[in-house]
Amino acid sequence: MSVLSTSQADNIKDTLQTAIDRDANETIEISQRIWDYAELGYQEFKSSELLQQNAQMAGFSVKSGVADIPTAFVASYGSGSPVIGIMGEFDALPGLSQTVTHEREEHVEGGAGHACGHNLFAAGSWAAAKAIKEQIEGGTLSGTIRFYGTPAEEGGAGKVYMARAGLFEDVDVMLHWHPAGFNDASPRSTNANKGAKFRFHGIPAHAALSPEKGRSALDAVEAMNFMANLMREHVPEATRIHYVITNGGEAPNVVPEFAEVFYYIRHPDFQTVRELFDRLVLTAEAAAMGTETTMEYEVINGSYNILPNEALSRITYNNLIKVGGVSYNAEEQKFAENLYATLYKPNKPLGSQENVEPFIPSAGRASSDVGDVSWLVPTTGLTTACLIPGSYLHTWQAVAAGGSSIAHKGMLNAAKVLAMTAADLLQDPTLIAAAREEWEASRGEDFEYYPLLGEREPPLDYRK
Amino acid sequence: MSVLSTSQADNIKDTLQTAIDRDANETIEISQRIWDYAELGYQEFKSSELLQQNAQMAGFSVKSGVADIPTAFVASYGSGSPVIGIMGEFDALPGLSQTVTHEREEHVEGGAGHACGHNLFAAGSWAAAKAIKEQIEGGTLSGTIRFYGTPAEEGGAGKVYMARAGLFEDVDVMLHWHPAGFNDASPRSTNANKGAKFRFHGIPAHAALSPEKGRSALDAVEAMNFMANLMREHVPEATRIHYVITNGGEAPNVVPEFAEVFYYIRHPDFQTVRELFDRLVLTAEAAAMGTETTMEYEVINGSYNILPNEALSRITYNNLIKVGGVSYNAEEQKFAENLYATLYKPNKPLGSQENVEPFIPSAGRASSDVGDVSWLVPTTGLTTACLIPGSYLHTWQAVAAGGSSIAHKGMLNAAKVLAMTAADLLQDPTLIAAAREEWEASRGEDFEYYPLLGEREPPLDYRK
Amino acid sequence: MSVLSTSQADNIKDTLQTAIDRDANETIEISQRIWDYAELGYQEFKSSELLQQNAQMAGFSVKSGVADIPTAFVASYGSGSPVIGIMGEFDALPGLSQTVTHEREEHVEGGAGHACGHNLFAAGSWAAAKAIKEQIEGGTLSGTIRFYGTPAEEGGAGKVYMARAGLFEDVDVMLHWHPAGFNDASPRSTNANKGAKFRFHGIPAHAALSPEKGRSALDAVEAMNFMANLMREHVPEATRIHYVITNGGEAPNVVPEFAEVFYYIRHPDFQTVRELFDRLVLTAEAAAMGTETTMEYEVINGSYNILPNEALSRITYNNLIKVGGVSYNAEEQKFAENLYATLYKPNKPLGSQENVEPFIPSAGRASSDVGDVSWLVPTTGLTTACLIPGSYLHTWQAVAAGGSSIAHKGMLNAAKVLAMTAADLLQDPTLIAAAREEWEASRGEDFEYYPLLGEREPPLDYRK
Amino acid sequence: MSVLSTSQADNIKDTLQTAIDRDANETIEISQRIWDYAELGYQEFKSSELLQQNAQMAGFSVKSGVADIPTAFVASYGSGSPVIGIMGEFDALPGLSQTVTHEREEHVEGGAGHACGHNLFAAGSWAAAKAIKEQIEGGTLSGTIRFYGTPAEEGGAGKVYMARAGLFEDVDVMLHWHPAGFNDASPRSTNANKGAKFRFHGIPAHAALSPEKGRSALDAVEAMNFMANLMREHVPEATRIHYVITNGGEAPNVVPEFAEVFYYIRHPDFQTVRELFDRLVLTAEAAAMGTETTMEYEVINGSYNILPNEALSRITYNNLIKVGGVSYNAEEQKFAENLYATLYKPNKPLGSQENVEPFIPSAGRASSDVGDVSWLVPTTGLTTACLIPGSYLHTWQAVAAGGSSIAHKGMLNAAKVLAMTAADLLQDPTLIAAAREEWEASRGEDFEYYPLLGEREPPLDYRK
Repeated sequence: MSVLSTSQADNIKDTLQTAIDRDANETIEISQRIWDYAELGYQEFKSSELLQQNAQMAGFSVKSGVADIPTAFVASYGSGSPVIGIMGEFDALPGLSQTVTHEREEHVEGGAGHACGHNLFAAGSWAAAKAIKEQIEGGTLSGTIRFYGTPAEEGGAGKVYMARAGLFEDVDVMLHWHPAGFNDASPRSTNANKGAKFRFHGIPAHAALSPEKGRSALDAVEAMNFMANLMREHVPEATRIHYVITNGGEAPNVVPEFAEVFYYIRHPDFQTVRELFDRLVLTAEAAAMGTETTMEYEVINGSYNILPNEALSRITYNNLIKVGGVSYNAEEQKFAENLYATLYKPNKPLGSQENVEPFIPSAGRASSDVGDVSWLVPTTGLTTACLIPGSYLHTWQAVAAGGSSIAHKGMLNAAKVLAMTAADLLQDPTLIAAAREEWEASRGEDFEYYPLLGEREPPLDYRK
Repeated sequence: MSVLSTSQADNIKDTLQTAIDRDANETIEISQRIWDYAELGYQEFKSSELLQQNAQMAGFSVKSGVADIPTAFVASYGSGSPVIGIMGEFDALPGLSQTVTHEREEHVEGGAGHACGHNLFAAGSWAAAKAIKEQIEGGTLSGTIRFYGTPAEEGGAGKVYMARAGLFEDVDVMLHWHPAGFNDASPRSTNANKGAKFRFHGIPAHAALSPEKGRSALDAVEAMNFMANLMREHVPEATRIHYVITNGGEAPNVVPEFAEVFYYIRHPDFQTVRELFDRLVLTAEAAAMGTETTMEYEVINGSYNILPNEALSRITYNNLIKVGGVSYNAEEQKFAENLYATLYKPNKPLGSQENVEPFIPSAGRASSDVGDVSWLVPTTGLTTACLIPGSYLHTWQAVAAGGSSIAHKGMLNAAKVLAMTAADLLQDPTLIAAAREEWEASRGEDFEYYPLLGEREPPLDYRK
Repeated sequence: MSVLSTSQADNIKDTLQTAIDRDANETIEISQRIWDYAELGYQEFKSSELLQQNAQMAGFSVKSGVADIPTAFVASYGSGSPVIGIMGEFDALPGLSQTVTHEREEHVEGGAGHACGHNLFAAGSWAAAKAIKEQIEGGTLSGTIRFYGTPAEEGGAGKVYMARAGLFEDVDVMLHWHPAGFNDASPRSTNANKGAKFRFHGIPAHAALSPEKGRSALDAVEAMNFMANLMREHVPEATRIHYVITNGGEAPNVVPEFAEVFYYIRHPDFQTVRELFDRLVLTAEAAAMGTETTMEYEVINGSYNILPNEALSRITYNNLIKVGGVSYNAEEQKFAENLYATLYKPNKPLGSQENVEPFIPSAGRASSDVGDVSWLVPTTGLTTACLIPGSYLHTWQAVAAGGSSIAHKGMLNAAKVLAMTAADLLQDPTLIAAAREEWEASRGEDFEYYPLLGEREPPLDYRK
Repeated sequence: MSVLSTSQADNIKDTLQTAIDRDANETIEISQRIWDYAELGYQEFKSSELLQQNAQMAGFSVKSGVADIPTAFVASYGSGSPVIGIMGEFDALPGLSQTVTHEREEHVEGGAGHACGHNLFAAGSWAAAKAIKEQIEGGTLSGTIRFYGTPAEEGGAGKVYMARAGLFEDVDVMLHWHPAGFNDASPRSTNANKGAKFRFHGIPAHAALSPEKGRSALDAVEAMNFMANLMREHVPEATRIHYVITNGGEAPNVVPEFAEVFYYIRHPDFQTVRELFDRLVLTAEAAAMGTETTMEYEVINGSYNILPNEALSRITYNNLIKVGGVSYNAEEQKFAENLYATLYKPNKPLGSQENVEPFIPSAGRASSDVGDVSWLVPTTGLTTACLIPGSYLHTWQAVAAGGSSIAHKGMLNAAKVLAMTAADLLQDPTLIAAAREEWEASRGEDFEYYPLLGEREPPLDYRK
């Protein structure tokens, strides 16, 4: 394929943007329905079905239930090389139900909510894929566009199972994005992550009659936590260790026979995560020993740190600059101001959503199952200002904004940048080659992929 | 009323025993149905209804929903003095579902079970009340017999609300019994008990992105537990402190905004429980302070230690000696041997169920809402060998045995002793006078009743 | 030897009392000098020397440095059977220096003090032995009287090494006493005790530069303590577990390479102590495992529970009744009132020092190396009111009173009771036979003596 | 003063280097004597005296005992502007006694040692000051050279008291250096630091007899530590929190009445340290509350983060490049190899001591009381390879190397760089002006100096 002239390329980008604006209502409708579904990881049956239906209607060929995951799918259009994939996430978070308002107000009591904006993620990515498809269909672009329906990002590590199943093997570049409070396409790594549930078994006894006959599984959980908290001092400072007690005993008058704690370990380097996890297991074994209980653990999730790719990020950045930031109308400004007032020490001012962040490589502390993908395929992503500046993901404010027109503006911007970036890559093979060269250097020669979560099956019921 | 001659009294006792044997199948049927219902505290709608229906059919007048508790009731027969009450409990325990087998085998997954034998308690007490009623009806006894349907003994403190509501005010003596692995009518005190849920509120944050912005409510729970565990060294040695973590956070990647721990404090003296509880509250307040969270607590239950009454115990003991222990047939012996083999360090040999324990006053470490009753009315009770010797309440073995023919034998024995004891008291006013004199001395002159659980409403949904 | 008539026996007792009163100043002088020396366990060189000199001057034959302990000795007078031994302790406690005043006021800054009244113990026992010696010398009594100089009772377990060395093998009865706030000769058991220092070794690192390279020995100590504190719920309720951190690291900026914690485990039954100690060792091993450190421990002390002997106690009690309690003069009353006002919730009123406590067998919670002696020889003891009623040993108030004339009165009373009891035993062989029969039944047939502290050498420098 | 030509400046530098080589033996002798003295913070009487004597003999005017610190002094030579100061530290660390050998081998049991190489620091700085003095004396340089004898860097914060006393007010530039395992003059910040001893007071009681009457001060220390360890998750990731338990109770059988823990908090920003320290105090207050003890704390030390100055660093770097790294002779190579083999995961290879590290600004995690100086005067420093590459300060390997000829080579290099840098500054006023401009911008306009350690007196006995 010959490289198009700049003006031709610009024409295609204009067309892509126009198409995305044209379908804006449809895209917003998809994002809203997923926001309403608010389905938890691996339970995203309606959300996945909605996206697959749209892909099928648009002429994509859809493989459902890939990687032994009912809600995972790959929708493909076009043929031959290059193959550009766009990821779409759609799972919600438990206990974060929220209405679209600047006050904390539960939509469904105790219900789930899209605190990470995956409703936008899915719909925006889909809009990009669809726009590219039209260009391939129309002959202005050639190659293959794929939309990956990737479930259970939040703790379910859906993409890791898809990676392990080889679903990214023939892809040249993978693209993704994420809602945020700012517009940014800088290279950004994440933390690798490994999570496990540690289960302790004690000897039950009536806690008043014969506590001396009991051995408390909850004691073991607390002893493990104690030693894990001491360990915090003796790990590299970028490490994250966090846990919740998922079973803390049945009733006060019975010495707990069973207790469970759910841990995550994170670090910018997946190899360090492996080592720290082994140390964490030591604390669990020690806790069992010292409380005369027994322990087994189940690895629940695990994902690699994202391997950033500066070559790809630069292309994306240029497209983001073209698309620009997000401007609020009067009503949106009012909503944003009210919501902003509820934020705890926001780190960006209102108004900053109109700008694009400078191109500065950085290391994020969160994790994403995009990590595994990025070690198997050169991968890049961006964020757009779908949330109020200064707000954080996984908060009720994120849920509130994620259902608003502000979020829709950010989502459409992301769709445009993804589509334009895909267009750049489909048009110029040297861009892919450069990205690949950088990627191979970053991975190192001896790299072999072993998922942090090992051989376990997808935990399809981890949110049940 | 004149005191009957010994032979007359003996005749009545023979009649009572015969009547209880006559109705054995009916009584067993009631106990089995309650075992099958396995309803948790304040949810015992079917169990309570079954008992009330039987009482009504037998001619008792029934007051339902007393003390603002839907499943509490008082069934009364006869008139005038003396008034003898018999308590009947019928609530099950969560997470202890079990079939009638010598292996651990859940009847309903995660379901509730009668690990404390309250199905037997209710049915046995009712059989006694019914037998007495026949004597009053027939004119051989005079006075009033009451059957108190007392819900939610396990952590719900049903009788305390009934006590607070004045339902025991006009009673002369209250009787009760409890299934156990042995036959005993010795005076036995219990621990007073006070339970509360401590609820901590933190500041949520993404545990990987910005843990420094979060303040963990689970940290607070663990800090409270830490200080409470240190406190164990500095409390009187008969004290019991036990807890379960009823909410340990939502997901590992969110710094927990809410966490909850449920505590019990017990001691043989209710006044000491008050003081220890206040110290426990200090640990909760300190935990909130030191973790920069906030705390509030809700008192869930509270009951006085049982005030034993030696005069009443002696009467009961004499009747228990008359009735004797429990003999197994070959099949029961086999079942008992198999179940016995699963016990952890049993403290009594098989065979000991055939004997009555010697009359030795003792102090038990469990608690019972019978405690509050015993400070308002002279009260006594007994245990019969419904369980395999050496087994403990609140274990699956207790559930297994509690549905077996072994348990039914023990239950019928208890019914006989209760009925015979009530007959003694109805016939001889000097017995009641002596019991009352002892009771007034034990309480002390200045005693005033303030429930440990204060003014709270019955926690009707504490098991939901 | 024929049994003397009652009046002869009474005469001897009168003579013994007179002799003790006669030597009162000398006895007080000995107790005061030991109070002033305030020498810690195994460092009691001056105190031991003083007592040995007195014994030698009185004609006793003295074996010094027995059981490989420089300050242990046995002083013997007379010959043949029966052999009656009287124990004398003389070690002080660290950090409890105090003047004889009703205010807390250190005698020597940070210095040691006789907070357990062993200065009185030694001098009073000696006075008794000396009085008996005069009777043997004069021919009114026959047999052997021994004074055992037993060092390092406070944590040093001096008598255990003496027991292990066979020094009590040929003794018929051992006698002892202890200063207290009341007069009592009831049979009283103690807790068995086992103590050990747990030493943890980590990897040092600069705590600011490279804490991730360090493994903290102090973390291990705290992890062990955490699990030991959890264990408190799951031990028999009479158990005592207590510890101090004897090395908690060098400087905050170095991850501690070494840390040490010193534990005691106590329980009324020495066999239970063995089991609990093994569980405690598990917590130490677990702590090392979970903090990636290493651990070794050294058993420091260990003593059996005292096996009470009712036959011997009854004899002692009768003599205590004869001698009576302690009366204060006006000045002593003033001092006592002032000191009493500083007590924390005293459990006895002022004035109660004049009475003898009723004869009621009981179980004490403290430990004593008298325990091991009592499993090898029938042993009995008493307490006299050397301290202010309601005061506790091991407090500054105990030190203050222990140097006062109040204490001297109690000490002389004890000397009299010991002497009179020894006289009873020397005169009537049936008393010893009865005591021995009870003792053999209490020990059980299969008893074999293995010291809880094993084969370790006396820790002669444990107080250095 | 006119700026000298380059060749004149080079001549002076050659002369300075020659002078330092000439006096090498004398400088090594000083460093060895201080190594032998191994005096702890504020106890450096001999070390300080030695340095002052040398200064006086060299014609410096010496002010002793400045800032109310007996071992602090300022030695001055020359007059007028500019004023260049060089700092010299000389305190040792406790518990790190060591011989000059590649095996761990204590020089003095439990003794102190120069694990931070301050013996070299003092002697090298002095050699530089002396060399400059000769040039001023000879007229080739003009202005004032000062040698600051700054005690108790290790936890004593000597320079902070000197800063608070205004001793740096008229200085233009302050210079310092530090022994390390590499040669580096890059700008490098440090962590600000604040340390305090938290003292808890409980209620003593016999731990076996009446633990329920006691309230343990050690419990409080452990509760504080528990909450502080939980806090680790909720602080910025560059934070350091570390502690040792400096008093963990007296004897296991007494509930500890007193216990003490010594904490440091560090962070790259002094304002954050203030905030974190306040949060730490909360954990102490909470621990007291929850254990029913009382608490007071004493701030022990506190120092600002070092404000790096790139302009000054660049001058130093150029001089370090001129002087070069450290070459080993055969014997030194052997010694280094043996010592290297004992290192735990060294981060630099042997041989790297010959190079100068590239000029890269960085942030160190240790703290230094140079921090406060750097906010009051533009300040810069360097390190030279006095230790084996890959070794860490505060280890026995650092002590071992610090007394070897390897260390002396590094020390003399440092002396040369300091002298040459001082010469540059004394010759060219524009260099000082540029440094000052950068420094004012870094501090910020509103900066006001409040020492983190507040108004406390120098803790002259903190190492006693």
